[in-house]
Amino acid sequence: MKVVLGPNRYGKAETRVVRVVRDGAVHHIKDINVSSALSGAMEDVHLTGDNAAVLPTDTQKNTAYAFARKHGVGEIEDFALLLARHYVGSQPSIHHARVEIEEYFWDRIPVSDGRDERHSFVRSGREVRTCVVHHDRDGRTTVVSGLRDLVVLNSTGSEFHGYIEDEYTTLKPTTDRILATAVSARWRHVPDDSPSGGSRDFGESYAEVRRRLLEAFAETHSLSLQQTLHAMGERVLNARREVCEVRMAMPNKHHFLVDLEPFGMDNPNEVFYAADRPYGLIEGSVLADDAPDACFAWE
Amino acid sequence: MKVVLGPNRYGKAETRVVRVVRDGAVHHIKDINVSSALSGAMEDVHLTGDNAAVLPTDTQKNTAYAFARKHGVGEIEDFALLLARHYVGSQPSIHHARVEIEEYFWDRIPVSDGRDERHSFVRSGREVRTCVVHHDRDGRTTVVSGLRDLVVLNSTGSEFHGYIEDEYTTLKPTTDRILATAVSARWRHVPDDSPSGGSRDFGESYAEVRRRLLEAFAETHSLSLQQTLHAMGERVLNARREVCEVRMAMPNKHHFLVDLEPFGMDNPNEVFYAADRPYGLIEGSVLADDAPDACFAWE
Amino acid sequence: MKVVLGPNRYGKAETRVVRVVRDGAVHHIKDINVSSALSGAMEDVHLTGDNAAVLPTDTQKNTAYAFARKHGVGEIEDFALLLARHYVGSQPSIHHARVEIEEYFWDRIPVSDGRDERHSFVRSGREVRTCVVHHDRDGRTTVVSGLRDLVVLNSTGSEFHGYIEDEYTTLKPTTDRILATAVSARWRHVPDDSPSGGSRDFGESYAEVRRRLLEAFAETHSLSLQQTLHAMGERVLNARREVCEVRMAMPNKHHFLVDLEPFGMDNPNEVFYAADRPYGLIEGSVLADDAPDACFAWE
Amino acid sequence: MKVVLGPNRYGKAETRVVRVVRDGAVHHIKDINVSSALSGAMEDVHLTGDNAAVLPTDTQKNTAYAFARKHGVGEIEDFALLLARHYVGSQPSIHHARVEIEEYFWDRIPVSDGRDERHSFVRSGREVRTCVVHHDRDGRTTVVSGLRDLVVLNSTGSEFHGYIEDEYTTLKPTTDRILATAVSARWRHVPDDSPSGGSRDFGESYAEVRRRLLEAFAETHSLSLQQTLHAMGERVLNARREVCEVRMAMPNKHHFLVDLEPFGMDNPNEVFYAADRPYGLIEGSVLADDAPDACFAWE
Repeated sequence: MKVVLGPNRYGKAETRVVRVVRDGAVHHIKDINVSSALSGAMEDVHLTGDNAAVLPTDTQKNTAYAFARKHGVGEIEDFALLLARHYVGSQPSIHHARVEIEEYFWDRIPVSDGRDERHSFVRSGREVRTCVVHHDRDGRTTVVSGLRDLVVLNSTGSEFHGYIEDEYTTLKPTTDRILATAVSARWRHVPDDSPSGGSRDFGESYAEVRRRLLEAFAETHSLSLQQTLHAMGERVLNARREVCEVRMAMPNKHHFLVDLEPFGMDNPNEVFYAADRPYGLIEGSVLADDAPDACFAWE
Repeated sequence: MKVVLGPNRYGKAETRVVRVVRDGAVHHIKDINVSSALSGAMEDVHLTGDNAAVLPTDTQKNTAYAFARKHGVGEIEDFALLLARHYVGSQPSIHHARVEIEEYFWDRIPVSDGRDERHSFVRSGREVRTCVVHHDRDGRTTVVSGLRDLVVLNSTGSEFHGYIEDEYTTLKPTTDRILATAVSARWRHVPDDSPSGGSRDFGESYAEVRRRLLEAFAETHSLSLQQTLHAMGERVLNARREVCEVRMAMPNKHHFLVDLEPFGMDNPNEVFYAADRPYGLIEGSVLADDAPDACFAWE
Repeated sequence: MKVVLGPNRYGKAETRVVRVVRDGAVHHIKDINVSSALSGAMEDVHLTGDNAAVLPTDTQKNTAYAFARKHGVGEIEDFALLLARHYVGSQPSIHHARVEIEEYFWDRIPVSDGRDERHSFVRSGREVRTCVVHHDRDGRTTVVSGLRDLVVLNSTGSEFHGYIEDEYTTLKPTTDRILATAVSARWRHVPDDSPSGGSRDFGESYAEVRRRLLEAFAETHSLSLQQTLHAMGERVLNARREVCEVRMAMPNKHHFLVDLEPFGMDNPNEVFYAADRPYGLIEGSVLADDAPDACFAWE
Repeated sequence: MKVVLGPNRYGKAETRVVRVVRDGAVHHIKDINVSSALSGAMEDVHLTGDNAAVLPTDTQKNTAYAFARKHGVGEIEDFALLLARHYVGSQPSIHHARVEIEEYFWDRIPVSDGRDERHSFVRSGREVRTCVVHHDRDGRTTVVSGLRDLVVLNSTGSEFHGYIEDEYTTLKPTTDRILATAVSARWRHVPDDSPSGGSRDFGESYAEVRRRLLEAFAETHSLSLQQTLHAMGERVLNARREVCEVRMAMPNKHHFLVDLEPFGMDNPNEVFYAADRPYGLIEGSVLADDAPDACFAWE
């Protein structure tokens, strides 16, 4: 039997970059986590340990910091594109770059006395903004934006019934339950050369997609978590022409109604036990019927 | 040698209670994590396994749910007091109860179209509100409120120099650094029968203490993290008469200036590496000079 | 624009099953974590919330427990196959099942006095055994076994030099470094109807693959982590005919030599700083040149 | 009101030191996590930010590495004593040092072919060895050793009944249940100048204490987790004269018998659901009736 080298990539994961912009006394910060993964002419390093084609992961870390200084860190998608193009463009042995960035959000701390304190921040929210950018030496580029850990809950407006019953069914149908989940969503941008592509503002796009996801979650009377997920993706596609596909993973964070009857009490959907495991897990996607080919976008 | 039973307690940890209050179409939620620990006449259960003095931890879980239904969950300190008094008051073998509660915060999701959606929520912030209440059969009661995971950062206004230098010193003094930390703070309330005690609004107290902590962090030009910590505690004590002691633990979340010289760049406090470990850890406390005895408050 | 339903699946994640087998006074335990994900005729549930095609995730949980009682839990691959075939075989709307199982290992506690204590266990190791099984209504079946969190370290026998140097390079070549990683490996079994397939003992296969991975890690003088990874996969393929492909992810858990020169000391590869982030991340795979098509095995 | 500085300390937490000892081709490794915390004349640094009394946490990190080189890392208690005495002995402003160390265990990887590979290791077990050492300028010294994350399970031999029943009781008594816990244990050593003190082998002491804890867990027919905990501590005290007090925290990791009756099956203690939260939490201690004063040992 002959052994063949299969898919592979290597890189530096989780380079934590904090970039301060000093606008006089007013500071701005960007707090990101950069992971780059490269692939290309990597037969030798696997087979013999010859590193001649390898741009070390240490150098990838340095590059993230140097680029943060030289170019600043604007929208994470733009910064990821810069890095990906640099790796493929500068090293013949690197045929493909994948750059993933997470961004953590901060709010300004309000101060008490009207003094002009503008360099103090407090971490806001649990939500993380994400992106994954691919770029290869044939000039193909994909951009997927996203978020994770956006934890949401509807305390009513959710039903579940009419499902298959088999010999292992014990669940009772309900017309009123808590629906809670931690949204992980990723959305694929149409390419720049598409009619709805072109130069774009990833920051505005993020804010708008996030708003639609939340609104659709809140406004959908839900008969199943799948229906809610689908409505959220559909809302984004309908509202944002720059997005052609949305993929979501939404754990059903079960909130079980506590049985208070043994204590002589009713429980009209007021007291719930928030369970950890197991949890339902719904994964789904929607895409425009004319969505361009995804290429390696989701890898 | 004779073996003696030392300090002990037992209870149910991390009972997750979600309480919905339905005010017509408008819902309110409280999302808490209750841990109770009881002690008392527990010699037999340790020595022989005789459980006659033991109120099972399962029953403690049930009690948390039943009380959430019967009394509602208002401020976590009040709910903890209710539970602690119940355990000591209802069981002669239970001489002491410690109840710890964490609260997780939610914001309402704004909806798009003016419809009256009022039952949709998104988890807000990373910060957790905490309390620890003790109550014993001699009627002694202590209340400690707190918060944790309040992550803050000053991008300037922090210096560090003038420290001891010994043979293992390599650190360079600095007059401008990032100061970042995750605040864990706990504050002890004066007893109800103190001049500044009496019936109180724990919710308002929490909001005000939190505000003072943040303001003092933002407004203190820092020569050391200890100085900042002390200023934060002092600010709380000066502003809030119901608080007689503040204890804080603040990790120094190091942000190291990246050396960009090898790449021909300067780095005027703009690009930082956010490190994980090791970290400085500053623990300190301030109290009023006339603070009443802490009793078992900090246990 | 028309919105199209894309790839989707749903199921119950992380059902924790502990199965005790009582062989007289001697007990055996299996400690597993079962996640099932189903797909099929799911248009309606996404578009309208009609659950007629949905076997609830709660029922999937029940099924895992009931099957553990009825069939016992033997090798996790066999248990996963049982579940996957059940879902596809019993419900016309379910066209495809993916079952993932993790297993946690326990050792017996040795007792002191020769008494026949045989029901006491201590969790062994950090390593987790894994499998992912797919089965669809066309009768296609794939089995991928694996492990994760197998943390290994070579304190010498690792070099790194001869790599690309660019303007962002600061790394110095080394002929002696610590090589440490947490192995995540998954290996694809050849189908039952292949010449090297047929009925198999997944337990023996696991033990043997694990042994080869460890041996190859220990015995490979490493010029790059890629080389080590490749040698590990190759060793498995050469030794185990039932395996046709191995995929691995190996973080380079950096151990940096501490510079002790400021303290007047040398450091001949004796004192290291174990860093958390960033880390190198090497992902690679090897396969037999005659490996059958992977179908959906890696999804 | 006057504000008073309360208890405080500061230090470097979680300095990760890996120490390799090269004994020809055979290597030995120690993998530890060092946290030091100092206190003393710290009024100025809190009140004015004057750091003249402060040995920076960065220097504490350096000291850990330099000492690892100079003195080697033997038993963690000995290394912690070295560091604590150094800080108090070398800096007049440091009146008290607390050093905490965790140790992670590694096994050698067996190799296949009889070659003399002796520098390859695999992380063993989930268990962490711990110690906390205090030393002050009055020459007082305390040593507490310990372990955590030692996960154990008895699949029978555990009962629970005869407890208090009140209006919130729903638990049914049982004469056969799974008893599972993650042991956190700490034990206080008698001082060196005690009759049973004197120079000691902390490594042997650790191995023996651990063995007694496991044996007592396995050999105790349990009527309550408190009884098991007490038996474990008592066993240690009776067996090891160098230990005068044992403190333990043991979560009751509930394994609930799954109700299979709806599926027409019985469940004779064979299929269990391993729950995450809530969990019982039992904390207890035993000490010798002639145990010397604990001083600050448990802080």
